[in-house]
Amino acid sequence: MNSLTDIPIMARALQLARRGRYSCMPNPHVGCVLVRDGEVIGEGYTRPAGGNHAEIEALQAAGNAQGATAYVTLEPCSHQGKTGPCADALVNAGVVRVVAAMTDPNPEVAGQGLSRLRAAGIAVECGVLENEARALNPGFIARMSRGRGRVRAKLAMSLDGRTAMASGESRWITSAAARQDVQRLRAGSCAVLTGSGTVLSDNCALTVRPAELALPPEEADLASLRQPLRVVLDSRLQTPSDARVLAGDGPTYLCHSAAVSASTALRATGASFLALPQGEGGLAFAPLFSFLAEQQCNEILVESGPRLAGALLQAGYLDELIVYMAPALLGSRARPLLQLPLDAMADKVPLTFVDVRTVGRDLRFTAIPGHPEPDGQAH
Amino acid sequence: MNSLTDIPIMARALQLARRGRYSCMPNPHVGCVLVRDGEVIGEGYTRPAGGNHAEIEALQAAGNAQGATAYVTLEPCSHQGKTGPCADALVNAGVVRVVAAMTDPNPEVAGQGLSRLRAAGIAVECGVLENEARALNPGFIARMSRGRGRVRAKLAMSLDGRTAMASGESRWITSAAARQDVQRLRAGSCAVLTGSGTVLSDNCALTVRPAELALPPEEADLASLRQPLRVVLDSRLQTPSDARVLAGDGPTYLCHSAAVSASTALRATGASFLALPQGEGGLAFAPLFSFLAEQQCNEILVESGPRLAGALLQAGYLDELIVYMAPALLGSRARPLLQLPLDAMADKVPLTFVDVRTVGRDLRFTAIPGHPEPDGQAH
Repeated sequence: MNSLTDIPIMARALQLARRGRYSCMPNPHVGCVLVRDGEVIGEGYTRPAGGNHAEIEALQAAGNAQGATAYVTLEPCSHQGKTGPCADALVNAGVVRVVAAMTDPNPEVAGQGLSRLRAAGIAVECGVLENEARALNPGFIARMSRGRGRVRAKLAMSLDGRTAMASGESRWITSAAARQDVQRLRAGSCAVLTGSGTVLSDNCALTVRPAELALPPEEADLASLRQPLRVVLDSRLQTPSDARVLAGDGPTYLCHSAAVSASTALRATGASFLALPQGEGGLAFAPLFSFLAEQQCNEILVESGPRLAGALLQAGYLDELIVYMAPALLGSRARPLLQLPLDAMADKVPLTFVDVRTVGRDLRFTAIPGHPEPDGQAH
Repeated sequence: MNSLTDIPIMARALQLARRGRYSCMPNPHVGCVLVRDGEVIGEGYTRPAGGNHAEIEALQAAGNAQGATAYVTLEPCSHQGKTGPCADALVNAGVVRVVAAMTDPNPEVAGQGLSRLRAAGIAVECGVLENEARALNPGFIARMSRGRGRVRAKLAMSLDGRTAMASGESRWITSAAARQDVQRLRAGSCAVLTGSGTVLSDNCALTVRPAELALPPEEADLASLRQPLRVVLDSRLQTPSDARVLAGDGPTYLCHSAAVSASTALRATGASFLALPQGEGGLAFAPLFSFLAEQQCNEILVESGPRLAGALLQAGYLDELIVYMAPALLGSRARPLLQLPLDAMADKVPLTFVDVRTVGRDLRFTAIPGHPEPDGQAH
């Protein structure tokens, strides 16, 4: 029975899950709370990849979980991954009831975890705070359900929708607070995608700098354990061998046309190379995103100029736009938000705002492609 | 003594004042509450121009105000305008204490109202909820203190900062809810300013349509009593004589170069004409705003294309930008928010966001020119 006390305990499990959001990819971040006789006897969240899942952490914290109820934000796994199946661990520990927020969209699990629990005589509920749990791992869910992670474009613009002066000058449009927020986006991403134009003009590192995350120490420590995969669309391999995007701890892929091959200097940087076929107006996107799915990338953050972001939008690959808007005007000569050649109002790209907030002195809004609700119904 | 009970009663007076915001211009909208022995004995707000001020309304509602305290959102007037001085009326009614939110910025009053009350032996406090009272009448305060009303530009754009397709097509970028909100802005304005380009391309009426205000009946009735002055900057008098901006109840001024004169057909429309000298790139702004001040315009709403709005901003005449942002992309060929030719980041126009909210499915933000607080301090 889905009781009133199930909800606050699941809310606590969701809170725990978030602690893993910068570190446990490609696994989903999950939280678990063990309760017996109205008391919490163990808590846990997914550890960095290769480490314990949330359930194992909670069981270890409890020591003895005989007769307990386990609250878990995702169906316990039934497959032998890097760690043993969590469903078996819960059975072996003598847990008598399991409350899950959602089933696992992973086709290797997909209800089998819950079935295994029920087969062992455990009472199972599923669907408590399901929407909230789904919102924790949208990239993982996208990758499992459609074979491709979530793609978000981060854009920084002025009030008049400009991202740089005509000369390319763009430092800084947004405030330090917005740049910290971008650091957190990056830290929660599996891959950061850009174009060679941005690399050449900005010489960006695209790394996570834990000191700039402005996170509590525990989360900052976890975030410092990994770097997102950096991916540069660089058809003609123009990235200089001393580019900052090739330095640092994280791996970098240079995606290039099959017609060009890397110089010795570029190979010596330790970069990885991926030849891609030509698509419409540049390298083909479909094999790129297949490759990123093979790399188990749940969240892909596009930090590029207007051309790549516009092309991804037009090709239907952008799931979300995250726009930081600075309180300033860059004027009508400045560069556009997106390179998007449209001529009639009928061609306009409809979006729906899903979030708006202040970040320091800037505004940040999140929009998803697609028609909003009918007039006056949205928000 | 500024007591704790003064504040909630003044808050009520501010609430009353707002009822006059669509009707009592060029007077400021003011509210008044009379209290005796802890009970409200009369309330009032400024009636449409030529009618009673708030104090007189409240005194009439009370009948006998002997021994009462009067709460008023603006210093009672001391001068003989269309109605007698309110300060004298309060003295004659036997009011024993007056609590005002702010002194009158009108140089004809400027503390003399309060002095007259004190001279008559009335206890006087001033400054209760002063900031809130000042926020009621920014246009009136601007006109009184600097000799020029407040100028606000209303702009409607897509997420990528575009106001129309390259062809000029722009209907509709924003939702019906945003257009209702604009109707309310218009209803609260003394003048609506546009350029002949907008008149020629949109054939806009620029009138207040009370049925579209979505206001409570009492406020809608008051708003229907007047129309803002419509002002078209039309250097060469290109406005067609059948233009909608010349029809309807409200008066319309066509501002033109002294070198051209109006056709017989244009004169027959009943429009008024104002010859202005040439300024930088168009008609001169300084004599235009002097004229609007002479017409006692407190709030001037600019509803124009990117060229006029950009020119007003660059010339320093815009006090506020009100931007409605639709959840859509119009693309990089579309028209800019403002015609504003800038080349270096050092030239960017700094703004400060003072408000952001959702209006239907759109977002609305209000920004004022000028540097925001240091990083991370604003908001």
